Formats: sequence, structure tokens, C-alpha cells
Amino acid sequence: MRWWGWGEDGRSPGLPPGAKALLDDELGLDGASSTPPVELTEVELPEARLPGPALERLRAAVGAEHVLEDRETRVKHAAGKSYPDLVRIRAGQASSAPDAVIMPGSAAEVAAVLEACSEARVAVVPFGGGTSVVGGVEPLREGFAGIVSLDLARLDRLVGVDRRSLTATLDAGTTGPAAERLLGRQGLTLGHFPQSFEHSSVGGWVATRSAGQASTGYGRADELVEGLRFLAPAGELNVPAVPASAAGPAVRELLVGSEGVLGVICEATLRVRPAPEHRRYDGWSFRSFEEGVEALRVMEQADAPPDVARLSDEEETRVSLAMAASGSRIERLGRAYLRARGHEGGCLAIVGLEGGEDEVGRRGRRCAALLRAGGGLYLGARPGRAWLKGRYAAPYLRDELLDRGAMVETLETAAGWSKLSDVRQAVRRSLRDSLAARGTPPVVMCHVSHLYRSGASLYFTFLARRQPEAPLEQWWAAKRAATDAILAAGATITHHHAVGRDHARWLEAEIGELGVELIRAAKQRLDPAGIMNPGKLLPVSPRPEGEAASGYSLSPSRGSSRNPAQSAS
Amino acid sequence: MRWWGWGEDGRSPGLPPGAKALLDDELGLDGASSTPPVELTEVELPEARLPGPALERLRAAVGAEHVLEDRETRVKHAAGKSYPDLVRIRAGQASSAPDAVIMPGSAAEVAAVLEACSEARVAVVPFGGGTSVVGGVEPLREGFAGIVSLDLARLDRLVGVDRRSLTATLDAGTTGPAAERLLGRQGLTLGHFPQSFEHSSVGGWVATRSAGQASTGYGRADELVEGLRFLAPAGELNVPAVPASAAGPAVRELLVGSEGVLGVICEATLRVRPAPEHRRYDGWSFRSFEEGVEALRVMEQADAPPDVARLSDEEETRVSLAMAASGSRIERLGRAYLRARGHEGGCLAIVGLEGGEDEVGRRGRRCAALLRAGGGLYLGARPGRAWLKGRYAAPYLRDELLDRGAMVETLETAAGWSKLSDVRQAVRRSLRDSLAARGTPPVVMCHVSHLYRSGASLYFTFLARRQPEAPLEQWWAAKRAATDAILAAGATITHHHAVGRDHARWLEAEIGELGVELIRAAKQRLDPAGIMNPGKLLPVSPRPEGEAASGYSLSPSRGSSRNPAQSAS
Repeated sequence: MRWWGWGEDGRSPGLPPGAKALLDDELGLDGASSTPPVELTEVELPEARLPGPALERLRAAVGAEHVLEDRETRVKHAAGKSYPDLVRIRAGQASSAPDAVIMPGSAAEVAAVLEACSEARVAVVPFGGGTSVVGGVEPLREGFAGIVSLDLARLDRLVGVDRRSLTATLDAGTTGPAAERLLGRQGLTLGHFPQSFEHSSVGGWVATRSAGQASTGYGRADELVEGLRFLAPAGELNVPAVPASAAGPAVRELLVGSEGVLGVICEATLRVRPAPEHRRYDGWSFRSFEEGVEALRVMEQADAPPDVARLSDEEETRVSLAMAASGSRIERLGRAYLRARGHEGGCLAIVGLEGGEDEVGRRGRRCAALLRAGGGLYLGARPGRAWLKGRYAAPYLRDELLDRGAMVETLETAAGWSKLSDVRQAVRRSLRDSLAARGTPPVVMCHVSHLYRSGASLYFTFLARRQPEAPLEQWWAAKRAATDAILAAGATITHHHAVGRDHARWLEAEIGELGVELIRAAKQRLDPAGIMNPGKLLPVSPRPEGEAASGYSLSPSRGSSRNPAQSAS
Repeated sequence: MRWWGWGEDGRSPGLPPGAKALLDDELGLDGASSTPPVELTEVELPEARLPGPALERLRAAVGAEHVLEDRETRVKHAAGKSYPDLVRIRAGQASSAPDAVIMPGSAAEVAAVLEACSEARVAVVPFGGGTSVVGGVEPLREGFAGIVSLDLARLDRLVGVDRRSLTATLDAGTTGPAAERLLGRQGLTLGHFPQSFEHSSVGGWVATRSAGQASTGYGRADELVEGLRFLAPAGELNVPAVPASAAGPAVRELLVGSEGVLGVICEATLRVRPAPEHRRYDGWSFRSFEEGVEALRVMEQADAPPDVARLSDEEETRVSLAMAASGSRIERLGRAYLRARGHEGGCLAIVGLEGGEDEVGRRGRRCAALLRAGGGLYLGARPGRAWLKGRYAAPYLRDELLDRGAMVETLETAAGWSKLSDVRQAVRRSLRDSLAARGTPPVVMCHVSHLYRSGASLYFTFLARRQPEAPLEQWWAAKRAATDAILAAGATITHHHAVGRDHARWLEAEIGELGVELIRAAKQRLDPAGIMNPGKLLPVSPRPEGEAASGYSLSPSRGSSRNPAQSAS
């Protein structure tokens, strides 16, 4: 993957036809203000500072050829793929680069690395695909003798399949495409397709409680996990793969979502399904977001959920249509059709079903009847095809937007059906107010992305003109306002992006002081030297107060390796 | 509830018609050897030893009228409803009775009780319905200044309902019938119907990861939990009710299944459903257990599970038919029908569906098609009606069997579909061998009770002639052999009965040394004085070795309050 953005070099989808005008008109972007990333040779990289004996032990543990210290590898492991990560790395700031990148080839090698690092007080950042959008893989070295990224890419086997039980054991470093290829040979699928699918890994999904685009049907990553092989500095945990158990508190649920802070997921036994023979993705229109939400609720609570259900709000629908606009005759006809049926300015939904042909037909008829009864207008298969084609495109598009001087960020939450409308309004308001106050009024879009019987997730995308003089402060003002609004409205700080560095200071507001204490107690037991992924998940004491800064900075003098909470306090 | 058995006095269903002959013939019971319980006045009860100041503080905390010390109340809280519990209590042994029974009327009162007991080193046993069958509510006082049962019966409100999100918040002490009555007034149901339904409580279900008979459809208790209000000696934890979250390790899953060892569940926010308009429970026959299991697997993995699916093995089917035999013409016709279709000596399954009439019809047709394709023979609604009528009868029947000198016990597990047949064989063999070696060959019955995509649960019932001279040693020999066999076959030590006292020594074999350490770390943080439900869930160190005794004894000189692991080491 590109060190400064998403995807491989040479693969640039380019901005869609209508995007340029929209950006210029609505965000006040000046088409001329191109802000490309610096050259790799210009990236400011701290000297590697790993103590000699530690380096020798690490080389002995995994083989010298799997301890990488070259510039590009270190830069690639200096950050994840969040907006602030990209802003900094594109500006040539990689002060948080690890001293080395360690690539173990087995669980035994992972154990040897953890032992060596515990003894030498070298911090370890587990690294799967490196696609975190919440600062989850950024090496924060403060207080350590050194810091390494533990890149799990060499752990990429399909360890085993139990066809009758429909479970498969996969190595943690297996990427989405590799997992689907390995399972596909046996006619199986995991059905886990997050937007980061092309680059993210099995271990990353489990460590962050990831949700894929089809998780309404296939289940979230945390729902797919049955067994785990987990290596902590204090030793190995093997969670047995059983369909259900009443044997006390669920240790598995402490390790799932642990974001590298307690140890390293080496293998996961996951529930799989027969690969679908057939797919049907359709477009639907609703006159309003509230009407659409209500139709989705009724469908979900009637036990008739599709595998994919996404409902864009009015603004997201408008912007999506504008960005994709080609001025074609079909487009004009489509608009006329919507207008004639009172759906102009409404909301687009994508409803996807996968499985055997009969099953897709049967479920599809049931979904359609319920959506129609809820006011939905069927738009046919074309919007579904378009969505499938572009399902992994957003991060590529982000690179283009960053080039053009835009700020673009996403955030997500989940809440009960009864709170959903208020949560959306509160987050929209918080983003508009916080960014308008800085003279950069945003476009705020939202969609429902996953359905549950008791509620749904909301996924927000917001765009604004970037403040070139203070891009991180601008971002932080919006992030803080939105997260405060989410909590005040009774929703969760994250539905599937995880906590990482960005949400850590709100964890206590979500799970309480004793809840945080329980995770700390687990960490003390599993990672007594405290070397695992410092500064992530757990808030740093003392808690930040008041108008704390993000801790992210473009100024090398402050240093991005400072912990956000510490620099805030 | 009766202090010496199940249900209310005066409600004795009596043994079914065919049972007497079966017991006499197959178990070698002598119909004359009646072993009724002793009189309440004869029960050996230790003196209440609560330190005066602690008693005063407890009276101040909940009101003097809610601190009970009378004989019957103490005896009723001396044990749960497991076979060894009943053997001891019927023999008049209540040496583990609590010093007092405390009945708080609010969460604030629970907090006051925990504070007072922490300071006075008085152990606290949370008590919901008292229906534990794994020794979960037995007061074990060793090492404490006193021990009290914290009976939550007064916490029995429906705190609130969110109709759109289909969640309801219930007090922990609400019993099954009360919960269904309160929700039923609003057209809702929890759908949680364990065999203990009539007496068990919401808090108990959550604390033990209970599964109800309809949990294949409605979900296990742990799957129903969305939010919790939990009081530990160290403070209060509030798990927010959100449909899903990626905010780190799931603290909720540490508290669910914590069996009173970490603190007290005061309220739970649970997912509910519209009360079903319609129910359809049918009987099916399969030529063999393996054929039936395969049909259930295919049905479940085709996403067509019924709400209730129970498949008895050949032995359970035979015994059930024999016990219910009335010699009627219909019975004879039924047998002839089965014989003519090659199903003689086969297996009975009950398949139940609940919901709207259309929905039940639609789902029922799908289930029926899949079951028929898997070799199932439709037996009509009569077996379903009979099962529904007797669904809570087993514990009443147990009292009758105990009266007649039988040993009767149940145990349960779950495993992947690929292991299920081996697990059943291994458990049957272990029970037969261990009991035959004592000269009391058993009847061992088994049924599949819950379906999951990756596997199912197995529920065993075994009967033997009780060894009057050593009933607990006899029980323990069977229990130990079966649990060892379960673990060796890769299944879980408990699917829905929980760990309690009886399974504690196997917890480490299930979740590993570090897994146990994680639960201990949580306990140290939440219950620093170590007063919560001692001797349950967590194995006592040092671990028992070799041919350990159960720790249960009828001999007052050894004292039933001794911890099993301690007496074994």
C-alpha cells in the first residue's frame, strides 16, 4: 500500500464527474490549491533508536531478514489511515515511525518477540493491514526504550476448516482478499467486507470488532469469532471453539476488541457460510430519512433483514447523485420518475441479498413487500450494481480530495431505534457548528449502515475546506464536538472503527470508571511490563480536562509521538 | 418453594403411569424403599453467627423486617436445587445455611449491604430464585466472619420499556412468570423459558448465561442482554444499552455469567419481542439419533431454525414412551405406524414455532420440508402438545424419584456439529462405566436441546439406584467421569447450567490458567475483600489433584460448608 494514502501506486480512480464542481461550489475549494504529498526522501524520520541487545534478540527471534529498518517500511508503519494520519504523513511528518518492523512467521516467533520486548521495555504495536482510522497502529514511544511494529503479514494461512460446523481457523495476518480466496476454494465465505477489505486483516477485524458492509446478514467480526489463539506477554490464551457456553464470564469477549493493548491475536476460529450462488442488490427510495429508517426497523424486527441495508439521508443522497452526475438521458428520466412519485429530494437505500437463488428470491420478496409497505419506491438493480462497483472506493477518493485541499472524515455510532433520529440531528449540528465556527462550513452526510433488532448504526461523512494553517486543530474541533454529541444522545462512541487513540479519552464516559479499571486489570495481568500498543484504547491518567488539544501536531517541535492525553493535561 | 424440593407444597404431579414398572425393572429399585425428607424441625441448622455490629448495619441498610433469621428461611437458602443439594437437605443437613437472609428493596440498599459486608468480612451469596443446579447459591462460610444470602425477590419491577427498540429493563429479582406477566400487558415477551422458569429470576438467568427451551429462536439469556446495572463492592457499573459497539473489550460479557462472584446484577436491559399470536409444536420421528442430528444441522444452517428444537436419542425416546404408556388404543396404533415406516426404536423430536400466524405457517412449511428431506416422519401436533404440557414437570418428577430411592441427575454441554456424536457416546460411556463400577448401572438419556449454526447442545439425564450409604460419592463419581469425558471430547463443561461449585475445578481446563487469572483480576478489582459468593465459579488454589472427593458430604463432622477443592487437596 502507498505510504501516503490508500491502495497501490498507479491505481487512482480520479474524482467522479460531478465532484469537482460540487467541491468548488459548496466547500469553497479553489481548484488550483493542489496539496500533493511530499516525496518519500523528504519525509522527516527519526533515527532508529532500538537498543543493540534488543535488536539482536529480535533478529534471533524472527530471523535477521524479518527485522526491517528501511525508510519506506518504517514510514509505512508510522501511522494508520485516518484523516489526521494522512495529513501528517503527506506533510512529511513521520516522527512516530517505529524503530523497526518485525515480521514473525509463527505464533512461537510472536511469543519470542513479546518476551524480548518485555524484558527490554520496547513497546510493541501489533500491525495487521495498518488500516486503522482511529490512530490504532501509530507507534507512541514515550517512556519506552524503543518501539517496534509487529507486522503479522507472514501469518497468512488457512489453518483448518470444519465443514460440518461451518467454522474456519485463519491466521491473524490473512487479508480480506486472501481469506476469501482461501475459503472460496472450499466453497465458503466469511462474508466480511469492510470498506478496508482489500488491505485489512482477520486479526485486525477481531481486535477492533469490525463490521463489514454485509454484517447485517453475515454478522459483525465479533459475532463471527468462536475461538482464539492469543499471545500476551504473560503467556498464551486459547479460547476453545464451542458454539455456546455458560462457563462464566466470556474471556473471549475481553480479547476480542482488545486492539493490541492486551496482546496479539495469532489465530481466530470464525463462523463461515457457503459462498453465495446468487446476489441481488437493489435500490429503493424513501421520501425522507425518517420514513426509510422506520421501514428498515419494521423489516428487521419482522426477522426479514437483508444482508446489506444502507439508507442514505437526504444530504448524502443529494451529494452522491451530484458527484455521479453525468447529465445522461437515463439520469434525467430517473429524476423525473422520482419527482412524479413525490420522491424528489428523498433518500436512497441499497438493499442486498446473497445466497442460493431460491433463498434470495424468497427473502427478496419478503423484504420488498415490507419496504413497499413502509413507503419505499423500488428503483431496480442499477443503483445496487453501482454501489457494489464502488463499495471499496471511498478511501481512494479521499486521497483525491486531500490533494484538492479538502478535509474529509468519517465517524460512526450505533443507538436504539428510538434514539436514532435524535442522534443524527445532534451529530449533524455538532459538526456544522464546530466547523462553521472556524469559517469552514461542512457538508455532512449520513447513512444507516447496519441493522439490529434493537437499533442501527449511523455512519457520517463530512467534508469541508481544509484549514491549511491548522488542519489537525480543525479536525479535532469537529471530532470532539461530534463525539460529545454522540455520548450526550445515548449512543456509542464507535460502532466499528474501534477506540484507538482518537476515542480513548471518551472510553470512560462510555463504560464508566470501573469498566476502564477492569480492562486495566486485564492488562496488568497479561502485559505486566505495559509494552503492548501504548496510548491506545485506555485513557491515559490523569484524564484530560477542558479544552484539550488533540495531541496531534504538524509541528516537529511538539512531536507526534506525544500521547494525546498527556500533551493535553 | 418447598425447602426440600421443587414447587409448592400440595402440588405433586405423581409418577406417570409407566414409570413405576420401569424404575423397578431397569434400575432394580425396590418400590418399598421410600426415602422421604425429614421434617423441617429435624433439620440440623448451625447457630447463626453473624457479628452483632454487622447485623445492626444490615438491619439499618434494608430495614430490620428484611433481615430474616427464622429456621425455614435459612433452610431454604442453605442450598440450591441440584441433586446433591436435595440429597443433603432431605436428609436434614443444612450446615451451610446462611446466618441471615437479607432482602434489599433497591439498588441503593444492595450497595449498602455490600459495603457493610465488605467491612465486616461477611460473605454475600446473591440469591434470585435459588434454582441453581450446580451449587451456585450454597453459602460457603469458611474464612469469613459470617455469611448472608442476598435475596433479590423484592427487586421485581419492570423498570421501563422501549417499544421501538424492543428492549425492556427489568429488576434482577423478577421471576419468569412475573416478567412474562409484566411484559405481556404490553404485548411483549422475553421468550425465555428454562425448565426452572416458574421460580428462576432475570438476574439469575443473566448471571448464569441461562438458556431457555425456546432459546434457539429467542436467543440465550446472554444474547438478550443489552445493558446492565451491576453493583460490586467496589462500586457501580452501568453498561449502556446500545445495539452494538466497537468500544473495546466487552465489559458486559465479564459481568454476564459472573455468578455472583464479582457483584450483584440489579437491573438488566433485555431484548424483547412481540408476544406470539400463534404457536405450533409438532412431533417428528427419525430412524436414528444421527439421522435426526443431521436433519437439524441442515435446517439450522439453511437459516430455517424453529424456536424450539429438541431431539431425543433412542434411549430417551424409549424411556419417555414407556413412562407415559397408558396402554391405549391410540398408543398401539402409533407404534404400528412407526413400525410400518421403519421408525420403530427411533428418535422423537419436538419442533416448535411461535409468532404471527402467517409467519408460523411460512416458517413451519420450510422446517417441515427440510426435516422430511432429512428422513423425518411427521407425527402431528399431539407430541408437541404433550411436551408443552410437561415442559416444566421434570423437577417435580425428580422429587418423586428421590422419594423412591433413585439417583437422578442432569448435565449439559455443547459442541460443534462435527463432534456431537462423539461427545454423546463419550458421555454415555463415562456415566455407564462409572456407575456400573459401583453396582448401580444407570439409564442414560440424551437430547439435543438448542441449535446453533456451528453446533448444538446435548442435555443428559441419568437415573440409577441410589447408593443409600454413599449417595454423594456415587453422584460425584458419575459427575467427574462425565465432565472429564466432555472436556476430552472438545465440548464445553456447561452449556447453560453455569459453573457454580460443581464445575469450578474444571474451569481452568476449559479457559486456561490465564483465562482464570483474568477473572481473578476482575474479582480483585470489583470485590477487593473477596466476599462475593465464595467457592463458586473460580477454582480454589491449590488445584485439586487426582482422585479428589466432591467435598460434599452427609457427615456433619466433615461439614458441607467445606470448599470442595480445599477438602480435596
